[in-house]
Amino acid sequence: MTDPTPALLPAPPYYAVVFTSVRTAGDNGYGETAERLLELAAEQPGFLGVDSARGADGLGITVSYWKNEESIAAWRDHAEHAPVRAHGHEHWYASFSLHVAKVERAYGFARPADA
Amino acid sequence: MTDPTPALLPAPPYYAVVFTSVRTAGDNGYGETAERLLELAAEQPGFLGVDSARGADGLGITVSYWKNEESIAAWRDHAEHAPVRAHGHEHWYASFSLHVAKVERAYGFARPADA
Repeated sequence: MTDPTPALLPAPPYYAVVFTSVRTAGDNGYGETAERLLELAAEQPGFLGVDSARGADGLGITVSYWKNEESIAAWRDHAEHAPVRAHGHEHWYASFSLHVAKVERAYGFARPADA
Repeated sequence: MTDPTPALLPAPPYYAVVFTSVRTAGDNGYGETAERLLELAAEQPGFLGVDSARGADGLGITVSYWKNEESIAAWRDHAEHAPVRAHGHEHWYASFSLHVAKVERAYGFARPADA
């Protein structure tokens, strides 16, 4: 595992898709599929970056960043993604929320590696 | 610890503040202060809800939701919050990013408790 850092992104405006979820018990094929989907998402036109975290209490947040609404819609309807969304709804999540939001302002900070 | 669920929110539009961070080593007073700040944020005018997760790799995401830009600015400049932001920048975070985004669409799902 490489050292994590927040996704490096261009200057706004762009879009954030905030997916917040609580997993059901058991893996049920989740881990492998999630990894595959993340790789696939990163190949899509308009994909800018992604950050993801899941805490010990089971709540996870994945924020993916996209160039515009068109690229979000295209990924939502992607032939390999769409059926997995339905499956996840049924088998993987006790609850989730999804927010599509237009990023208006952003800033960041990274400590020099030798600090 | 209660069962986690994504924050319940009103219909859009409203604002999301996405704070993504990687912690430095050691607590350095972080845990206690973070808990206090979360309680304080929840008391502010325009605060709508918050979701937070930090994974085993050290990357954490906190998404707070606010009624409008004015409520975000007021919390940023709050007398108890502002000095902690500077302290956190210096002591707690190896890197972070902050995104302010206007939520345009949202939906969610919660499985019935007995399902």
